[in-house]
Amino acid sequence: MGQTIPHWLEKQNDLNPDKTAIEFAGGGRLTFAELREESRRLAGGMLLQGIQRGDHIALLVSNQLSTPLFIHALSYIGAVGVLLNTRLTAEELAYQLDDADVKKLIADKEHLEKGIKAADLTSLGADDVYSSSRFPKVEEASDLNTSLDFSDPYTMIYTSGTTGQPKAVIHTYGNHWFSAVASALNLGIEAKDKWLLCLPVFHVGGFSILMKNVIYGMPIVLFNNFDAGKINDQIMENGVTIISVVTVMLQRLLKDLGRGSYPESFRGMLLGGGPAPEPLLYEAYEKNISVFQSYGMTETSSQICTLSPGEAFRKIGSAGKALSPAELKIDQSEPGRIGEILVKGPMVSEGYYKKQKRENEFLKTGDLGYMDKEGFLYVVDRVKDMIISGGENIYPAEIESVLTGIEGVQEAGVTGIKDDEWGEVPAAFLVLENNMPLDIEKIKAYCREKLAGYKVPHVFYILEELPRNASNKILRRKLLETYERNNEGA
Amino acid sequence: MGQTIPHWLEKQNDLNPDKTAIEFAGGGRLTFAELREESRRLAGGMLLQGIQRGDHIALLVSNQLSTPLFIHALSYIGAVGVLLNTRLTAEELAYQLDDADVKKLIADKEHLEKGIKAADLTSLGADDVYSSSRFPKVEEASDLNTSLDFSDPYTMIYTSGTTGQPKAVIHTYGNHWFSAVASALNLGIEAKDKWLLCLPVFHVGGFSILMKNVIYGMPIVLFNNFDAGKINDQIMENGVTIISVVTVMLQRLLKDLGRGSYPESFRGMLLGGGPAPEPLLYEAYEKNISVFQSYGMTETSSQICTLSPGEAFRKIGSAGKALSPAELKIDQSEPGRIGEILVKGPMVSEGYYKKQKRENEFLKTGDLGYMDKEGFLYVVDRVKDMIISGGENIYPAEIESVLTGIEGVQEAGVTGIKDDEWGEVPAAFLVLENNMPLDIEKIKAYCREKLAGYKVPHVFYILEELPRNASNKILRRKLLETYERNNEGA
Repeated sequence: MGQTIPHWLEKQNDLNPDKTAIEFAGGGRLTFAELREESRRLAGGMLLQGIQRGDHIALLVSNQLSTPLFIHALSYIGAVGVLLNTRLTAEELAYQLDDADVKKLIADKEHLEKGIKAADLTSLGADDVYSSSRFPKVEEASDLNTSLDFSDPYTMIYTSGTTGQPKAVIHTYGNHWFSAVASALNLGIEAKDKWLLCLPVFHVGGFSILMKNVIYGMPIVLFNNFDAGKINDQIMENGVTIISVVTVMLQRLLKDLGRGSYPESFRGMLLGGGPAPEPLLYEAYEKNISVFQSYGMTETSSQICTLSPGEAFRKIGSAGKALSPAELKIDQSEPGRIGEILVKGPMVSEGYYKKQKRENEFLKTGDLGYMDKEGFLYVVDRVKDMIISGGENIYPAEIESVLTGIEGVQEAGVTGIKDDEWGEVPAAFLVLENNMPLDIEKIKAYCREKLAGYKVPHVFYILEELPRNASNKILRRKLLETYERNNEGA
Repeated sequence: MGQTIPHWLEKQNDLNPDKTAIEFAGGGRLTFAELREESRRLAGGMLLQGIQRGDHIALLVSNQLSTPLFIHALSYIGAVGVLLNTRLTAEELAYQLDDADVKKLIADKEHLEKGIKAADLTSLGADDVYSSSRFPKVEEASDLNTSLDFSDPYTMIYTSGTTGQPKAVIHTYGNHWFSAVASALNLGIEAKDKWLLCLPVFHVGGFSILMKNVIYGMPIVLFNNFDAGKINDQIMENGVTIISVVTVMLQRLLKDLGRGSYPESFRGMLLGGGPAPEPLLYEAYEKNISVFQSYGMTETSSQICTLSPGEAFRKIGSAGKALSPAELKIDQSEPGRIGEILVKGPMVSEGYYKKQKRENEFLKTGDLGYMDKEGFLYVVDRVKDMIISGGENIYPAEIESVLTGIEGVQEAGVTGIKDDEWGEVPAAFLVLENNMPLDIEKIKAYCREKLAGYKVPHVFYILEELPRNASNKILRRKLLETYERNNEGA
């Protein structure tokens, strides 16, 4: 048994019962007392349905107002939530249901049919699938947890798996608690804080905001769809102080903002989900918007490195430093050189479901990066995506960042292709804005200006869209397949 | 082995090397990089002097700029600091040196002579006593701790012992870390925070600010003497946002402030060290000063209950609620009734040196209190100080609070004396302002207005000063001795 703490929602019900906990952009709001009461009623309903401590319960839900209630209800019982990505196919979901030994599946209206289809492909029957909107509630639930044990598992989230089969990352209550506290020690906790949550809660970055909500006793604004206009309205008129975004969201918010500006009470944007193109960061800088670029993954229970508010402008492009009390190392004997990023800390998951626990204290992230002289992290690319060309290391993300800086290029993906002379050479795949044609020779010339010769892509392909996984990450191995299909027998 | 985290000063040296860590009111300041460097040099000196991991090293020092350096140096080695109260006599110090198995004693100039005298009364020799101002420093200390284990002991502080022999409370690194984080989850951490430390660091309330300093990466202003004028200057002109005080300090600061007011950037006063008289709290209220009344003791590594900023005015007189993640119970089956205060949480010490570890999860505080309907704690008095008169419970602190509200009464102490009719009755001991005489009958009449008849003191004594221990707490058993001496043979 590890450290125990009072159930965080019981605590907020004691400390801040009448304070707003959740404002739902789709309409409705809950105080902390209401959030507790409703979560407990759902927990009572779960007990009635035979859900027990330790059971694995899958959630196939988008960001509804009821979503946090289910998440907290699980903690009142001590069941483990398996958070499913709603964009997966029934077949993909079935794999995770089987692999995670799921006992029951709860789906919202929109995903119920797919949930049933997925369950049918496993040993789960229709009786094990529940509609979230018709889930029973019980007036007076008893025997609910009043405390949480840091060493108990709370959630399982599958890694997005750009390569190989997805694995379920296990997060304990302690992982989530330390993640929230580590973020607080970096960003602070101000009395007026209100965090906007528009990332899916089935990703750990979105889930972590639900944790900050109940661990800080801080109100959040919950969005189910990304609507740049409505989100900017919330920042400008409803006192939102921080928002978590990924690159494409930042792009759209800035586009919608146009020549407008955010109020001084807005503290900034926590940017995750991979390195952002520098031109975009400079655009934010010019609009005086603090972007706290961060680095993290499912295994680290959200961000583990973040650029601090004081450095947001001075260190553009860096993912900052390891949050306190986390640690960061680069697997590289020479300082300043690129190597694999290693991380450690009480927010780092101890391992994957059904796999051996990690033996090393440090987690090998599979990401490449380097630290500058002041110790700031720059994330370069995935280890597996690195291209070796004539003995030189090439990082696709660097080339992609240059390509997306070109007027008319909407998205870019780069991967390595076999080459008789150099071993590998980079190939570029572009999505053009409004499908406007572009002069490839001009693009090449631009690349030659910005990049060392060996980094300039040898071939260019125009695609309608880039292959992405359910977490919106570019699947570079699919780019390679595209290339190979186009060159079969060539 | 427990949870380990990076050494907090190493972490701040990484995150905020050039940020001011400590401003010393006596002159001088240190950045986090300097605080680290100097602490490591001292740690190197300690190693040279044969100080090893696990050794008990006594510190007999006031709030010098070098004091935090010694405290951090101990953590770099893994030695345990025994923090001695400088107001103790050589005999009292000798008891603690023996009891705590101290191996070396480090004293500042002012207390060196007393330290040597105390050491002479124990098995320690003059060779085991060091002057803090001439302690060796080493340019390149090696083999220093880079991480801290939550379960390792860091400090020992003797309880003030208003009754019986003092006992050494053991604090682990985890106790101090969770205490700092719990306070942050209540008061928040704002970018401009600067905490003023004028409590002695050998008390846990003062020590805890040194921990916040390195755990938050927040600057502090360190005072060695309580000078109301200079402290008010710091609040008004040097951006101090929070100050920790005890009642008498609050009184003096308000007196010095007069009709002036604090800037808006000043967040408030964290008030500890026992219940404060209500008139004083209302005086602060009228001056628009937020007072966060708190409740805590050496065993809880500083405050464990605190009135939150949002309730500072609405719940005057209350010590608030248990900080997250701590818990509070009243040992009383009927809600709202007075009972012993019980507390629990990761900031609560597991026990005293050489005594059995606590068996119950909850610590019995020996203090009496009650919770109002909204769950706010009101501390009433010490269990041992309660007077039982004709079957009624009387709490000396309540009567003292009424007495100090009388114009001309500077201090008041109340204790129970034997009475043939009622078993016990209250007796009052007053210190008058400027020794101006007062009409006792008028005081009695005032008490009869404010208190139930059985609470009105039967006898009144005027004293030059009240007997207090080294922590400035009234020794009520000494009041009783005063009474008994005056009535010998009567």
